[in-house]
Amino acid sequence: MIKTIAFDADDTLWHNERMFVSIKDKYKALLSEYHDGEWIEQRLNAAETVNIKHFGYGVKGFALSMIETAIDLTEGRIKGSEVLEIIGYAREMLTAPVDLLEGVQATVQKLSQRYDLMVITKGDLFDQEAKLARSGIGDYFSAFEIIPQKNAKTYQYILRRHQIRPDEFVMVGNSLKSDILPVLEIGARAVHIPYEIDWFHEMVSDEELRDKTFARLNKMSELPVWLKKQS
Amino acid sequence: MIKTIAFDADDTLWHNERMFVSIKDKYKALLSEYHDGEWIEQRLNAAETVNIKHFGYGVKGFALSMIETAIDLTEGRIKGSEVLEIIGYAREMLTAPVDLLEGVQATVQKLSQRYDLMVITKGDLFDQEAKLARSGIGDYFSAFEIIPQKNAKTYQYILRRHQIRPDEFVMVGNSLKSDILPVLEIGARAVHIPYEIDWFHEMVSDEELRDKTFARLNKMSELPVWLKKQS
Repeated sequence: MIKTIAFDADDTLWHNERMFVSIKDKYKALLSEYHDGEWIEQRLNAAETVNIKHFGYGVKGFALSMIETAIDLTEGRIKGSEVLEIIGYAREMLTAPVDLLEGVQATVQKLSQRYDLMVITKGDLFDQEAKLARSGIGDYFSAFEIIPQKNAKTYQYILRRHQIRPDEFVMVGNSLKSDILPVLEIGARAVHIPYEIDWFHEMVSDEELRDKTFARLNKMSELPVWLKKQS
Repeated sequence: MIKTIAFDADDTLWHNERMFVSIKDKYKALLSEYHDGEWIEQRLNAAETVNIKHFGYGVKGFALSMIETAIDLTEGRIKGSEVLEIIGYAREMLTAPVDLLEGVQATVQKLSQRYDLMVITKGDLFDQEAKLARSGIGDYFSAFEIIPQKNAKTYQYILRRHQIRPDEFVMVGNSLKSDILPVLEIGARAVHIPYEIDWFHEMVSDEELRDKTFARLNKMSELPVWLKKQS
Protein backbone atom coordinates (compact mmCIF):
# COMPACT_ATOMS: atom_id res chain seq x y z
CA MET A 1 0.00 0.00 0.00
CA ILE A 2 1.51 3.29 -1.07
CA LYS A 3 0.98 6.02 1.51
CA THR A 4 3.56 8.66 0.61
CA ILE A 5 4.45 10.03 -2.81
CA ALA A 6 7.53 12.19 -3.07
CA PHE A 7 8.26 14.38 -6.07
CA ASP A 8 11.47 15.80 -7.37
CA ALA A 9 11.04 19.52 -8.08
CA ASP A 10 13.15 20.88 -10.98
CA ASP A 11 11.99 19.43 -14.32
CA THR A 12 9.50 17.17 -12.56
CA LEU A 13 7.04 19.67 -11.06
CA TRP A 14 8.26 22.78 -12.88
CA HIS A 15 10.48 23.69 -15.81
CA ASN A 16 14.08 24.42 -14.88
CA GLU A 17 16.59 23.15 -17.43
CA ARG A 18 14.71 25.08 -20.11
CA MET A 19 15.57 28.31 -18.29
CA PHE A 20 19.24 27.32 -18.05
CA VAL A 21 19.23 26.59 -21.79
CA SER A 22 17.69 29.96 -22.58
CA ILE A 23 20.20 31.76 -20.33
CA LYS A 24 23.04 29.82 -21.98
CA ASP A 25 21.76 31.06 -25.34
CA LYS A 26 21.90 34.65 -24.13
CA TYR A 27 25.36 34.01 -22.75
CA LYS A 28 26.58 32.61 -26.05
CA ALA A 29 25.16 35.63 -27.87
CA LEU A 30 26.92 37.95 -25.41
CA LEU A 31 30.26 36.29 -26.14
CA SER A 32 29.64 35.67 -29.84
CA GLU A 33 32.23 38.23 -30.96
CA TYR A 34 34.91 36.21 -29.15
CA HIS A 35 34.02 32.55 -29.88
CA ASP A 36 31.45 30.32 -31.50
CA GLY A 37 28.55 28.99 -29.44
CA GLU A 38 29.56 25.36 -29.37
CA TRP A 39 33.00 26.09 -27.95
CA ILE A 40 31.56 28.47 -25.34
CA GLU A 41 29.10 25.82 -24.22
CA GLN A 42 31.81 23.16 -23.99
CA ARG A 43 34.01 25.37 -21.86
CA LEU A 44 31.13 26.44 -19.64
CA ASN A 45 30.10 22.83 -19.04
CA ALA A 46 33.70 21.96 -18.16
CA ALA A 47 33.87 24.85 -15.66
CA GLU A 48 30.56 23.80 -14.12
CA THR A 49 31.71 20.22 -13.67
CA VAL A 50 34.76 21.42 -11.75
CA ASN A 51 32.94 24.09 -9.76
CA ILE A 52 30.00 21.96 -8.65
CA LYS A 53 32.32 20.34 -6.11
CA HIS A 54 32.83 23.66 -4.35
CA PHE A 55 29.75 25.61 -5.29
CA GLY A 56 27.06 22.92 -5.29
CA TYR A 57 24.00 23.03 -7.56
CA GLY A 58 22.08 26.15 -8.28
CA VAL A 59 21.91 29.50 -9.98
CA LYS A 60 24.61 31.34 -8.01
CA GLY A 61 27.28 28.72 -8.65
CA PHE A 62 26.21 28.69 -12.30
CA ALA A 63 26.65 32.48 -12.46
CA LEU A 64 30.15 32.24 -11.01
CA SER A 65 31.00 29.57 -13.59
CA MET A 66 29.67 31.78 -16.39
CA ILE A 67 31.78 34.74 -15.21
CA GLU A 68 34.90 32.62 -14.82
CA THR A 69 34.46 31.07 -18.26
CA ALA A 70 33.80 34.46 -19.88
CA ILE A 71 37.05 35.90 -18.50
CA ASP A 72 38.92 32.81 -19.57
CA LEU A 73 37.45 32.73 -23.10
CA THR A 74 38.07 36.45 -23.70
CA GLU A 75 41.53 36.36 -22.11
CA GLY A 76 40.32 39.00 -19.69
CA ARG A 77 39.01 41.31 -22.39
CA ILE A 78 35.38 40.98 -21.31
CA LYS A 79 33.93 44.35 -20.30
CA GLY A 80 32.62 45.16 -16.84
CA SER A 81 29.20 45.86 -18.31
CA GLU A 82 29.17 42.36 -19.81
CA VAL A 83 29.99 40.79 -16.44
CA LEU A 84 27.16 42.81 -14.89
CA GLU A 85 24.90 41.41 -17.58
CA ILE A 86 25.85 37.88 -16.50
CA ILE A 87 25.05 38.73 -12.86
CA GLY A 88 21.73 40.05 -14.18
CA TYR A 89 21.05 36.59 -15.69
CA ALA A 90 21.33 35.12 -12.18
CA ARG A 91 18.88 37.63 -10.81
CA GLU A 92 16.55 36.96 -13.73
CA MET A 93 16.62 33.21 -13.08
CA LEU A 94 16.00 33.65 -9.35
CA THR A 95 12.92 35.80 -9.86
CA ALA A 96 11.44 34.16 -12.97
CA PRO A 97 7.85 32.95 -12.65
CA VAL A 98 7.65 29.25 -11.83
CA ASP A 99 6.34 27.43 -14.87
CA LEU A 100 4.60 24.17 -13.88
CA LEU A 101 4.83 21.16 -16.19
CA GLU A 102 1.69 20.05 -17.99
CA GLY A 103 -0.83 18.32 -15.73
CA VAL A 104 1.10 18.91 -12.51
CA GLN A 105 -1.38 21.22 -10.81
CA ALA A 106 -4.39 18.94 -11.39
CA THR A 107 -2.54 15.70 -10.59
CA VAL A 108 -0.99 16.97 -7.39
CA GLN A 109 -4.29 18.40 -6.23
CA LYS A 110 -6.06 15.09 -6.89
CA LEU A 111 -3.40 12.91 -5.26
CA SER A 112 -3.17 15.11 -2.16
CA GLN A 113 -6.68 13.94 -1.20
CA ARG A 114 -5.59 10.31 -0.95
CA TYR A 115 -1.84 10.33 -0.27
CA ASP A 116 0.68 12.18 1.79
CA LEU A 117 2.75 14.24 -0.69
CA MET A 118 6.32 15.45 -0.25
CA VAL A 119 8.91 17.27 -2.32
CA ILE A 120 12.47 15.94 -2.20
CA THR A 121 14.94 18.05 -4.11
CA LYS A 122 18.57 18.97 -4.45
CA GLY A 123 19.77 22.47 -4.93
CA ASP A 124 20.08 25.72 -3.12
CA LEU A 125 17.79 25.99 -0.10
CA PHE A 126 17.03 29.66 -0.67
CA ASP A 127 16.23 29.21 -4.39
CA GLN A 128 14.08 26.15 -3.89
CA GLU A 129 12.04 27.59 -1.02
CA ALA A 130 11.40 30.68 -3.12
CA LYS A 131 10.32 28.57 -6.11
CA LEU A 132 7.90 26.47 -4.06
CA ALA A 133 6.41 29.67 -2.65
CA ARG A 134 5.97 31.09 -6.17
CA SER A 135 4.65 27.81 -7.60
CA GLY A 136 1.19 28.07 -6.05
CA ILE A 137 1.11 24.31 -5.26
CA GLY A 138 3.03 24.43 -1.94
CA ASP A 139 -0.06 23.69 0.14
CA TYR A 140 -0.52 20.22 -1.35
CA PHE A 141 2.73 19.02 0.22
CA SER A 142 3.18 18.11 3.86
CA ALA A 143 6.97 18.28 3.71
CA PHE A 144 9.65 19.91 1.61
CA GLU A 145 13.05 18.26 1.92
CA ILE A 146 16.08 19.90 0.34
CA ILE A 147 19.18 17.75 0.45
CA PRO A 148 22.72 18.30 -0.85
CA GLN A 149 22.92 14.93 -2.62
CA LYS A 150 20.33 12.31 -3.49
CA ASN A 151 21.65 8.90 -2.59
CA ALA A 152 20.43 5.82 -0.70
CA LYS A 153 21.68 7.27 2.59
CA THR A 154 19.84 10.58 2.28
CA TYR A 155 16.60 8.89 1.18
CA GLN A 156 16.90 6.47 4.11
CA TYR A 157 17.37 9.38 6.47
CA ILE A 158 14.26 11.15 5.20
CA LEU A 159 12.10 8.01 5.38
CA ARG A 160 13.30 7.28 8.91
CA ARG A 161 12.64 10.82 10.04
CA HIS A 162 9.10 10.75 8.69
CA GLN A 163 8.55 7.14 9.86
CA ILE A 164 7.74 5.90 6.37
CA ARG A 165 8.39 2.27 5.39
CA PRO A 166 10.06 1.78 1.99
CA ASP A 167 7.15 -0.36 0.73
CA GLU A 168 4.76 2.52 1.45
CA PHE A 169 6.86 5.04 -0.47
CA VAL A 170 7.15 6.00 -4.13
CA MET A 171 9.48 8.60 -5.61
CA VAL A 172 8.58 10.42 -8.85
CA GLY A 173 11.24 12.27 -10.83
CA ASN A 174 13.01 12.93 -14.09
CA SER A 175 16.52 11.87 -13.10
CA LEU A 176 17.51 8.20 -13.22
CA LYS A 177 20.61 8.94 -11.18
CA SER A 178 18.99 10.98 -8.42
CA ASP A 179 15.32 9.99 -8.30
CA ILE A 180 15.24 6.37 -9.40
CA LEU A 181 18.39 4.31 -8.71
CA PRO A 182 18.97 5.29 -5.04
CA VAL A 183 15.26 4.82 -4.27
CA LEU A 184 15.28 1.28 -5.71
CA GLU A 185 18.40 0.62 -3.64
CA ILE A 186 16.48 1.18 -0.40
CA GLY A 187 13.65 -1.10 -1.51
CA ALA A 188 11.09 1.55 -2.40
CA ARG A 189 9.30 2.15 -5.72
CA ALA A 190 10.17 4.80 -8.27
CA VAL A 191 8.46 6.36 -11.28
CA HIS A 192 10.57 7.94 -14.00
CA ILE A 193 9.01 10.77 -15.98
CA PRO A 194 11.70 11.89 -18.45
CA TYR A 195 12.02 15.59 -19.13
CA GLU A 196 12.42 17.05 -22.61
CA ILE A 197 16.11 17.81 -21.92
CA ASP A 198 18.55 15.57 -20.03
CA TRP A 199 21.04 17.28 -17.78
CA PHE A 200 24.56 16.21 -18.66
CA HIS A 201 25.56 15.88 -14.99
CA GLU A 202 22.89 13.27 -14.40
CA MET A 203 23.53 10.72 -17.15
CA VAL A 204 23.64 7.03 -16.19
CA SER A 205 24.92 4.06 -18.20
CA ASP A 206 22.86 1.10 -19.42
CA GLU A 207 25.00 -1.01 -17.10
CA GLU A 208 23.68 0.81 -14.05
CA LEU A 209 20.09 0.23 -15.21
CA ARG A 210 20.47 -3.51 -15.75
CA ASP A 211 17.91 -5.59 -13.81
CA LYS A 212 16.33 -2.51 -12.30
CA THR A 213 12.54 -2.39 -12.10
CA PHE A 214 10.77 0.91 -12.15
CA ALA A 215 7.90 2.56 -13.99
CA ARG A 216 8.33 5.01 -16.82
CA LEU A 217 5.50 7.40 -17.62
CA ASN A 218 5.26 10.03 -20.32
CA LYS A 219 3.60 12.67 -18.25
CA MET A 220 2.43 13.48 -14.75
CA SER A 221 -1.24 13.02 -15.57
CA GLU A 222 -0.60 9.27 -16.05
CA LEU A 223 0.45 8.89 -12.41
CA PRO A 224 -2.99 8.36 -10.77
CA VAL A 225 -3.76 5.41 -13.07
CA TRP A 226 -0.36 3.85 -12.36
CA LEU A 227 -0.90 4.27 -8.62
CA LYS A 228 -4.28 2.50 -8.80
CA LYS A 229 -2.57 -0.57 -10.27
CA GLN A 230 -0.10 -0.84 -7.37
CA SER A 231 -0.90 -3.17 -4.50
CA MET B 1 13.22 20.15 32.21
CA ILE B 2 15.41 20.91 29.23
CA LYS B 3 15.74 17.97 26.88
CA THR B 4 16.96 19.48 23.61
CA ILE B 5 19.67 22.08 23.08
CA ALA B 6 19.95 23.63 19.63
CA PHE B 7 22.98 25.58 18.52
CA ASP B 8 23.40 28.16 15.83
CA ALA B 9 26.44 27.30 13.67
CA ASP B 10 28.30 30.32 12.21
CA ASP B 11 30.00 32.36 14.96
CA THR B 12 28.45 30.16 17.65
CA LEU B 13 30.10 26.79 17.00
CA TRP B 14 32.77 27.95 14.56
CA HIS B 15 34.31 31.19 13.34
CA ASN B 16 32.68 32.63 10.26
CA GLU B 17 32.47 36.43 10.30
CA ARG B 18 36.22 36.54 10.93
CA MET B 19 36.76 34.88 7.55
CA PHE B 20 34.43 37.35 5.82
CA VAL B 21 36.36 40.22 7.45
CA SER B 22 39.68 38.81 6.27
CA ILE B 23 38.34 38.32 2.74
CA LYS B 24 36.97 41.86 2.77
CA ASP B 25 40.46 43.08 3.70
CA LYS B 26 41.93 41.27 0.71
CA TYR B 27 39.18 42.70 -1.45
CA LYS B 28 39.90 46.24 -0.27
CA ALA B 29 43.60 45.75 -0.96
CA LEU B 30 42.76 44.45 -4.46
CA LEU B 31 40.77 47.61 -5.21
CA SER B 32 43.01 50.02 -3.29
CA GLU B 33 44.29 51.75 -6.43
CA TYR B 34 40.71 52.79 -7.25
CA HIS B 35 39.20 53.77 -3.87
CA ASP B 36 39.88 53.90 -0.16
CA GLY B 37 38.90 50.96 2.04
CA GLU B 38 36.09 52.59 3.94
CA TRP B 39 34.22 53.60 0.80
CA ILE B 40 34.70 50.14 -0.73
CA GLU B 41 33.30 48.52 2.39
CA GLN B 42 30.29 50.86 2.48
CA ARG B 43 29.42 50.13 -1.13
CA LEU B 44 29.91 46.39 -0.70
CA ASN B 45 27.62 46.35 2.35
CA ALA B 46 25.00 48.28 0.39
CA ALA B 47 25.19 45.80 -2.51
CA GLU B 48 24.91 42.86 -0.09
CA THR B 49 21.83 44.32 1.56
CA VAL B 50 20.10 44.58 -1.81
CA ASN B 51 21.32 41.23 -3.12
CA ILE B 52 20.46 39.16 -0.06
CA LYS B 53 16.81 39.33 -1.14
CA HIS B 54 17.60 37.46 -4.35
CA PHE B 55 20.75 35.58 -3.49
CA GLY B 56 20.16 34.64 0.17
CA TYR B 57 22.93 34.23 2.70
CA GLY B 58 26.23 32.60 1.97
CA VAL B 59 29.53 32.70 0.20
CA LYS B 60 28.32 32.53 -3.41
CA GLY B 61 25.95 35.46 -3.07
CA PHE B 62 28.71 37.38 -1.30
CA ALA B 63 31.07 36.68 -4.21
CA LEU B 64 28.52 37.98 -6.72
CA SER B 65 28.10 41.14 -4.61
CA MET B 66 31.87 41.61 -4.51
CA ILE B 67 32.13 41.28 -8.30
CA GLU B 68 29.22 43.63 -8.93
CA THR B 69 30.61 46.24 -6.52
CA ALA B 70 34.10 45.98 -8.01
CA ILE B 71 32.78 46.69 -11.53
CA ASP B 72 30.70 49.53 -10.22
CA LEU B 73 33.53 51.12 -8.20
CA THR B 74 36.04 50.87 -11.03
CA GLU B 75 33.52 52.00 -13.65
CA GLY B 76 34.18 48.75 -15.47
CA ARG B 77 37.95 49.14 -15.50
CA ILE B 78 38.54 46.13 -13.23
CA LYS B 79 40.66 43.52 -14.99
CA GLY B 80 39.54 39.99 -15.76
CA SER B 81 42.36 38.64 -13.63
CA GLU B 82 41.07 40.66 -10.67
CA VAL B 83 37.56 39.26 -11.08
CA LEU B 84 39.07 35.76 -11.16
CA GLU B 85 40.82 36.61 -7.91
CA ILE B 86 37.46 37.46 -6.35
CA ILE B 87 36.02 34.13 -7.52
CA GLY B 88 39.10 32.56 -5.93
CA TYR B 89 38.11 34.17 -2.61
CA ALA B 90 34.80 32.29 -2.76
CA ARG B 91 36.57 29.01 -3.39
CA GLU B 92 38.99 29.77 -0.55
CA MET B 93 36.12 30.42 1.87
CA LEU B 94 34.27 27.27 0.86
CA THR B 95 37.26 25.03 1.44
CA ALA B 96 38.81 26.76 4.48
CA PRO B 97 39.31 24.55 7.55
CA VAL B 98 36.49 24.93 10.05
CA ASP B 99 37.84 26.77 13.08
CA LEU B 100 35.80 25.89 16.22
CA LEU B 101 35.29 28.55 18.89
CA GLU B 102 37.05 28.10 22.20
CA GLY B 103 35.52 25.41 24.40
CA VAL B 104 33.02 24.21 21.78
CA GLN B 105 34.45 20.72 21.23
CA ALA B 106 34.60 19.87 24.98
CA THR B 107 31.23 21.43 25.83
CA VAL B 108 29.35 19.80 23.00
CA GLN B 109 30.89 16.43 23.75
CA LYS B 110 29.91 16.71 27.43
CA LEU B 111 26.35 17.91 26.79
CA SER B 112 25.70 15.23 24.18
CA GLN B 113 25.77 12.64 26.98
CA ARG B 114 22.83 14.21 28.77
CA TYR B 115 20.84 16.15 26.15
CA ASP B 116 19.66 15.79 22.62
CA LEU B 117 21.70 18.26 20.56
CA MET B 118 20.73 19.90 17.28
CA VAL B 119 22.15 22.50 14.94
CA ILE B 120 19.74 25.10 13.56
CA THR B 121 21.32 27.43 11.04
CA LYS B 122 20.61 29.73 8.16
CA GLY B 123 22.66 29.83 5.06
CA ASP B 124 23.46 27.82 2.03
CA LEU B 125 22.65 24.13 2.41
CA PHE B 126 25.67 22.96 0.47
CA ASP B 127 28.13 25.20 2.39
CA GLN B 128 26.73 24.36 5.80
CA GLU B 129 26.65 20.61 5.25
CA ALA B 130 30.25 20.77 4.08
CA LYS B 131 31.27 22.80 7.14
CA LEU B 132 29.60 20.40 9.57
CA ALA B 133 31.38 17.51 7.87
CA ARG B 134 34.74 19.29 8.16
CA SER B 135 34.11 20.42 11.76
CA GLY B 136 34.70 17.01 13.34
CA ILE B 137 31.81 17.51 15.81
CA GLY B 138 28.97 16.37 13.54
CA ASP B 139 28.43 13.13 15.42
CA TYR B 140 27.35 14.88 18.61
CA PHE B 141 24.22 16.23 16.92
CA SER B 142 21.09 14.21 16.22
CA ALA B 143 19.72 16.71 13.71
CA PHE B 144 21.01 19.44 11.44
CA GLU B 145 18.35 21.90 10.35
CA ILE B 146 19.15 24.48 7.69
CA ILE B 147 16.41 27.04 7.20
CA PRO B 148 16.13 30.06 4.91
CA GLN B 149 15.03 32.43 7.70
CA LYS B 150 14.99 32.14 11.47
CA ASN B 151 11.66 33.36 12.77
CA ALA B 152 8.96 32.13 15.18
CA LYS B 153 7.28 30.18 12.39
CA THR B 154 10.37 28.26 11.32
CA TYR B 155 11.32 27.43 14.93
CA GLN B 156 7.78 26.25 15.57
CA TYR B 157 7.92 24.05 12.51
CA ILE B 158 11.17 22.42 13.64
CA LEU B 159 9.93 21.81 17.18
CA ARG B 160 6.70 20.31 15.89
CA ARG B 161 8.52 18.07 13.48
CA HIS B 162 10.82 16.75 16.19
CA GLN B 163 7.97 16.60 18.74
CA ILE B 164 9.74 18.92 21.18
CA ARG B 165 7.76 21.08 23.63
CA PRO B 166 8.95 24.72 23.89
CA ASP B 167 9.59 24.36 27.65
CA GLU B 168 11.96 21.46 26.92
CA PHE B 169 13.96 23.43 24.37
CA VAL B 170 16.80 25.93 24.57
CA MET B 171 18.47 27.74 21.67
CA VAL B 172 22.09 28.90 21.92
CA GLY B 173 23.47 31.48 19.49
CA ASN B 174 25.25 34.73 18.84
CA SER B 175 22.47 36.61 17.04
CA LEU B 176 19.77 38.40 19.05
CA LYS B 177 17.66 38.75 15.94
CA SER B 178 17.86 35.15 14.72
CA ASP B 179 18.67 32.99 17.73
CA ILE B 180 17.08 34.77 20.69
CA LEU B 181 14.00 36.91 19.91
CA PRO B 182 12.03 34.42 17.75
CA VAL B 183 12.77 31.62 20.25
CA LEU B 184 11.42 33.67 23.17
CA GLU B 185 8.37 34.41 21.02
CA ILE B 186 7.43 30.71 20.88
CA GLY B 187 7.85 30.34 24.65
CA ALA B 188 11.20 28.56 24.70
CA ARG B 189 14.44 29.59 26.38
CA ALA B 190 17.45 31.16 24.70
CA VAL B 191 21.10 31.73 25.58
CA HIS B 192 23.00 34.53 23.91
CA ILE B 193 26.75 34.11 23.51
CA PRO B 194 27.93 37.27 21.70
CA TYR B 195 30.62 36.88 19.07
CA GLU B 196 33.62 39.17 18.78
CA ILE B 197 32.12 40.84 15.67
CA ASP B 198 28.45 41.72 15.14
CA TRP B 199 27.07 41.23 11.68
CA PHE B 200 25.47 44.43 10.42
CA HIS B 201 22.48 42.58 8.94
CA GLU B 202 21.54 41.22 12.36
CA MET B 203 21.42 44.33 14.55
CA VAL B 204 18.37 44.80 16.81
CA SER B 205 17.24 47.91 18.68
CA ASP B 206 16.98 48.31 22.46
CA GLU B 207 13.25 48.66 21.91
CA GLU B 208 13.02 45.11 20.57
CA LEU B 209 14.87 43.79 23.62
CA ARG B 210 12.67 45.51 26.20
CA ASP B 211 11.12 43.09 28.74
CA LYS B 212 12.80 40.12 27.12
CA THR B 213 14.32 37.51 29.40
CA PHE B 214 17.21 35.42 28.22
CA ALA B 215 20.64 34.40 29.44
CA ARG B 216 23.86 35.95 28.26
CA LEU B 217 27.09 34.00 28.61
CA ASN B 218 30.62 34.98 27.69
CA LYS B 219 31.68 31.67 26.28
CA MET B 220 30.42 28.21 25.43
CA SER B 221 32.19 26.55 28.37
CA GLU B 222 29.80 28.40 30.75
CA LEU B 223 26.79 26.62 29.26
CA PRO B 224 26.82 23.40 31.35
CA VAL B 225 26.74 25.39 34.62
CA TRP B 226 23.86 27.52 33.34
CA LEU B 227 21.94 24.41 32.30
CA LYS B 228 22.30 22.87 35.77
CA LYS B 229 20.59 25.91 37.27
CA GLN B 230 17.52 25.51 35.02
CA SER B 231 14.53 23.62 36.34
